[in-house]
Amino acid sequence: MIRYISRMPDRAWEDAAPRTVALLGSTGSIGTSALKVIEAHPGLFRVAALAGARNVRLLAEQATRHRPAHLGVLDEAGAAELRALLPAGYAPDIHVGPEGYAILAALPDVSTVLSAQVGAAGLRATVAAARAGKVICLANKESLVLAGALIRQICAETGAVVLPVDSEHNAVFQALRVHDVTRAPHAVRRIILTASGGPFRGRDRAFLSSVTREQALNHPNWSMGAKITIDSATLMNKGLEVIEAYHLYGVAPESIEVVVHPQSIVHSLVEYADGSQIAHLGTPDMRIAIAYCMAWPRCVDTGVAPLDLVRAGSLTFEAPDLSSFPCLALARRVLAREANTPGGAGLPVVLNAANEAAVELFLHGRIGFMNIPELIERALDAHEAEATNAEAPDSTATKNPDNAHTDRYMPMHDIDHIEALDAATRRRVRHWADAAGTQGTGNA
Amino acid sequence: MIRYISRMPDRAWEDAAPRTVALLGSTGSIGTSALKVIEAHPGLFRVAALAGARNVRLLAEQATRHRPAHLGVLDEAGAAELRALLPAGYAPDIHVGPEGYAILAALPDVSTVLSAQVGAAGLRATVAAARAGKVICLANKESLVLAGALIRQICAETGAVVLPVDSEHNAVFQALRVHDVTRAPHAVRRIILTASGGPFRGRDRAFLSSVTREQALNHPNWSMGAKITIDSATLMNKGLEVIEAYHLYGVAPESIEVVVHPQSIVHSLVEYADGSQIAHLGTPDMRIAIAYCMAWPRCVDTGVAPLDLVRAGSLTFEAPDLSSFPCLALARRVLAREANTPGGAGLPVVLNAANEAAVELFLHGRIGFMNIPELIERALDAHEAEATNAEAPDSTATKNPDNAHTDRYMPMHDIDHIEALDAATRRRVRHWADAAGTQGTGNA
Repeated sequence: MIRYISRMPDRAWEDAAPRTVALLGSTGSIGTSALKVIEAHPGLFRVAALAGARNVRLLAEQATRHRPAHLGVLDEAGAAELRALLPAGYAPDIHVGPEGYAILAALPDVSTVLSAQVGAAGLRATVAAARAGKVICLANKESLVLAGALIRQICAETGAVVLPVDSEHNAVFQALRVHDVTRAPHAVRRIILTASGGPFRGRDRAFLSSVTREQALNHPNWSMGAKITIDSATLMNKGLEVIEAYHLYGVAPESIEVVVHPQSIVHSLVEYADGSQIAHLGTPDMRIAIAYCMAWPRCVDTGVAPLDLVRAGSLTFEAPDLSSFPCLALARRVLAREANTPGGAGLPVVLNAANEAAVELFLHGRIGFMNIPELIERALDAHEAEATNAEAPDSTATKNPDNAHTDRYMPMHDIDHIEALDAATRRRVRHWADAAGTQGTGNA
Repeated sequence: MIRYISRMPDRAWEDAAPRTVALLGSTGSIGTSALKVIEAHPGLFRVAALAGARNVRLLAEQATRHRPAHLGVLDEAGAAELRALLPAGYAPDIHVGPEGYAILAALPDVSTVLSAQVGAAGLRATVAAARAGKVICLANKESLVLAGALIRQICAETGAVVLPVDSEHNAVFQALRVHDVTRAPHAVRRIILTASGGPFRGRDRAFLSSVTREQALNHPNWSMGAKITIDSATLMNKGLEVIEAYHLYGVAPESIEVVVHPQSIVHSLVEYADGSQIAHLGTPDMRIAIAYCMAWPRCVDTGVAPLDLVRAGSLTFEAPDLSSFPCLALARRVLAREANTPGGAGLPVVLNAANEAAVELFLHGRIGFMNIPELIERALDAHEAEATNAEAPDSTATKNPDNAHTDRYMPMHDIDHIEALDAATRRRVRHWADAAGTQGTGNA
């Protein structure tokens, strides 16, 4: 049984040319690829807003080329720096911080929002776009991990549309078009997400305990930002994608499988009730998925080199190793809770926040690679234990100031609550890492 | 640019249950698989007609189970034998020979015709079904090879629909649904047909000259009839499929590629303008493609074991070897002519008839494996030379009684002409084999 998170775009949106777009995260890997697609098809798109975070110089370059009336940056210092870099006679409105990104996502003359910010920071803008009824080309998987049930509900109310830019989910989205699942809702048997396995595929826990930041950043197939590259190395990226697929397609958690496919050529598959599997293949380049969503229903030249299967030679598949890569199992634990209780009793927020904090610590050389899943598991365990205590009538959990987030053991139908739990979890993980660092076990 | 041979089925056909079907070739490999699908879904189908050729005993068993009002057999002797095998109180109309099959294909209460006869014998029934406006589940690729332009024209006139049962073309058909090609006609860049390579993949011409009938019949992946199994071993099957794809999808010949894929798990692919390739994968079992067409738009359980990519392990791809397998190049030569001149100046008929005659001779041990492409090429050369002579004012070609078919050097818009050229080509190929046999070079 499949239930899309949203309807498909309507004909008016499809026919509009140029399509007016806001690119949130325009200076990142997805954002710069999206601009390549846009610049290759000048008649199809008009850039109405661009937003970056810290790379103000690149943002200024992009803005100077496209002259959108609205820009977004992380803070006031960045805004001042940006303004100084813009050419004379071009004075766009500059919006600042998460509230600023949310304004850009809901601009009245924007029909299409690319949500491509990194991590939980993208949530508020995605929700704003959904509330404003936009077509959302969603690369920020955290939005769905943190608030999938909420976003789904908003889309149903406003008519907002989510088109998945993540290559795996875009592959699934394309494969789902082979049958009219609104007429044959039981046609889908399984969604099979492929995982490259990252740079440490086949390695054991002992090896992984001592890998360096540089080794972990050396992804074999995809060129991506640092955070998602580490997520690929731990398989947490695939874990988040399993949760994302659950929200996008409404299938049962046990119908979402992960297969390791080191060549990253098969981007994912859908298995139908008749035994068919439909796969999306291609050169690993995000422009394909970006263009599919942004140009839909047009099929435009992306400039991506055609896939040559004979040159590729061999496509291989293996089962994921949950012992060396426990993050995938942690994500499944969280998804099981989400499937029982929309919002997952806060566990999806804890999973993601603990992961973001741990990855940051690893990138700063403060913890070892295997400490990432350890810290995440500890955060999940602590949150569950506190929630259980909080439910008991004689609970003392709320008396502990470190437990300020336990009152969020409830459906996560509110962005403020999500952000508070997110912040509390990050603080907690950093605190644990600090304590362990003091004891000299930071790299254990 | 893509132009389907026919529109999609209309809503009335889709909604009808049970769907009334005529199975032509019910005792063959495709026919018996189709009956398995039908018998697994008793509410969906009603068998109105069954037709076999020589396996009268199996036909009687099938008829006794389903009690259709109409049966078809090859000849009067078979009809008498069949009548004797049927149970008391069941007295269906029994139709005989190609004219009989054509009657079954056009029965007024039949909505759906499975055209699954072997070889050129299926042409007349396919055309009859098209003239009667049926939904044709087409397994008989020869119908399109011989008369693709004609069938396309009839479908346009009558509203008949062709759904491709051949696993490769069914894979393409499914993959083409990812984009609405009526709205994005330039979305399709290439059709990539996969070929198992057959039992002799990687072998050279010297080896192939001495292979036996038994070696050639030992297909690594698919369980099929003898004729198509030999066609798989010579790659003529893929050659005929390239021509079939041309007629089904209306793409340029150079946009249809062949890739050897020994595992037969990827059944074919479509490459889109954005660099995406959509593939259909599955356990090699014809029930998937048969059920896709016959149950459309339903997606029904076929009983086929799900594909386990991890167990499959590795999917490999290589370029076809046109030196060892010249039949593929011969088919391309014929398709080039077809693309210039609808009907291909008779060359598609000569290609197919020479191949059918040569395969029969090989199966009877009368010629060697590499004599199959030799005889086909000789037939093509002779037909072209005669046609050129016939065009010249001082031609003497028509004085040669063996050249009775040269007046068919014209668009093949008539079934009688096609059948006459078919018969003349078969006689000629048998004559050449006889002559070579007398000289002791039959197995050269």
